[in-house]
Amino acid sequence: MSQPTTAVIGLGAMGLGMARSVLRAGLPTTGCDLREEARTAFIADGGHACATPAEAAAGCAALALVVVNANQTEAVLFGQGGALESLPEGAVVLGCATVPPAFARELGARLAERGMLFLDAPISGGALKAASGELSVMASGSPEAFAAARPLLDAVATTVHELGPEPGQGSTMKMVNQCLAGVHIATAMEALALGIRSGLDPRSVYEVITGAAGNSWMFENRVPHVLDGDYTPRSAVDIFVKDLGIVLDAGRASGFPLPVTAAAHQQFLAASGMGLGGADDAAVVKVYQALSDIELPGDGEA
Amino acid sequence: MSQPTTAVIGLGAMGLGMARSVLRAGLPTTGCDLREEARTAFIADGGHACATPAEAAAGCAALALVVVNANQTEAVLFGQGGALESLPEGAVVLGCATVPPAFARELGARLAERGMLFLDAPISGGALKAASGELSVMASGSPEAFAAARPLLDAVATTVHELGPEPGQGSTMKMVNQCLAGVHIATAMEALALGIRSGLDPRSVYEVITGAAGNSWMFENRVPHVLDGDYTPRSAVDIFVKDLGIVLDAGRASGFPLPVTAAAHQQFLAASGMGLGGADDAAVVKVYQALSDIELPGDGEA
Repeated sequence: MSQPTTAVIGLGAMGLGMARSVLRAGLPTTGCDLREEARTAFIADGGHACATPAEAAAGCAALALVVVNANQTEAVLFGQGGALESLPEGAVVLGCATVPPAFARELGARLAERGMLFLDAPISGGALKAASGELSVMASGSPEAFAAARPLLDAVATTVHELGPEPGQGSTMKMVNQCLAGVHIATAMEALALGIRSGLDPRSVYEVITGAAGNSWMFENRVPHVLDGDYTPRSAVDIFVKDLGIVLDAGRASGFPLPVTAAAHQQFLAASGMGLGGADDAAVVKVYQALSDIELPGDGEA
Repeated sequence: MSQPTTAVIGLGAMGLGMARSVLRAGLPTTGCDLREEARTAFIADGGHACATPAEAAAGCAALALVVVNANQTEAVLFGQGGALESLPEGAVVLGCATVPPAFARELGARLAERGMLFLDAPISGGALKAASGELSVMASGSPEAFAAARPLLDAVATTVHELGPEPGQGSTMKMVNQCLAGVHIATAMEALALGIRSGLDPRSVYEVITGAAGNSWMFENRVPHVLDGDYTPRSAVDIFVKDLGIVLDAGRASGFPLPVTAAAHQQFLAASGMGLGGADDAAVVKVYQALSDIELPGDGEA
């Protein structure tokens, strides 16, 4: 291939949606995933697909890492068959996973030593907005990294927050967002369960609260999963075990107490301990159910 | 007076706004407050005003109690110079304060014994919506109580949630709302302070989060107070010391654990302990400041 390409590493719900958005924008796009069914899905859309990051990175101008965490980010870049075996000098790497800000800073320095650009670029918006090219990106990096990433950013996002010239600033903002999002999920489940325990109809709790000062983006988004008794993972409990863990680690590293976050983290840990780590994060409500005799919508169904 | 009147007991920011809305709706209205300046303000609007609930309740068909808590609700009804010294039989009492659901249930029974109707009717929306007649009311009570309260409700609220026939159901919903609202305020301040501690510009935190999944009604409403360095109480720290206390008491009474709420309550208590009980509830951010070296907007100004 002579035309520089764009690659998306990781074709989960977010990555596949992003790869499709990039393709729709007219950029030659390679998707990379170990799972054959994910590759097949992307090929059916007209994309290229391969199983190793090294294959995807060959001839690539911009490479988005849409994996779960820092370990996977490390592996797909530096591991065997990793992208750095073939990524051309001067290419830009977009780190889209939620990772510790310190990891993003170090990664930027390591890639700079190899002659690569790095954009610390965590994403927000969920799978639907990934598929429609309407994500929000909380990004930081050099002007050169922003410029090189621009076609890819334009294809996947409607909002790109430019948070500064240093990797780490994007991940710090994402960490603040995840702190709020995670606590709001746990609180939604705590308050909903209290309402049920106190005799309220859960649907009426949803109707009243979504129009009142107690509302949050997460309450409005996650409580319907409980009302439908549907814990199919849109985002799993273990994601917030990890992400609130990142928040608490950052607080510990800078001597900063986070008591509300710590309490919420325990509730995600409890759900994970109950065997619900892979369930939708709304399943935190089952922690409260396990400690009381509340009935939840869908209980008793086959 | 031959025409039955409406009375509002307590002309604080909420009560005065409600009394003005009732007056604007064309109902003869008496406002009652111990503070002469509050009475003078309402008389200037064309209302009647008096200093004791007993005076206000004479000839009254509907009486709204817009006081701070259960103790004040008790006092303005049953205390010396209280409304029950003169309230006509068959009148409806609207309990608008945030009180324990069990208190609302008992109050309904006590008023029924005296031949009065009771609507458990906590309000939500803040002083601006009280003044514009656009409150939300989380109400429960008998059909007769709803019917008798209707002209007053129509004058002050755009949304009346009818939550059931028993006093206590309205206060239970309000308790669930306050649980969420209080935790969201504490979490907003925890996350904002973490962002500042981690090097983010607080204004950029506000801009990004209000468009992201970490947003809450309270984050969007209260963080600007911090950005402006303005802790003039719109709603004070001690209100949530009380309201989260009601939530935790209800949990304790029914053997229901509320770990996230408990952690948030401690942060309001800490702010109150710092002497900030009368300050705006956004002043919870100063608890985090006291435990770190973060700088807040407005620090160092005269």
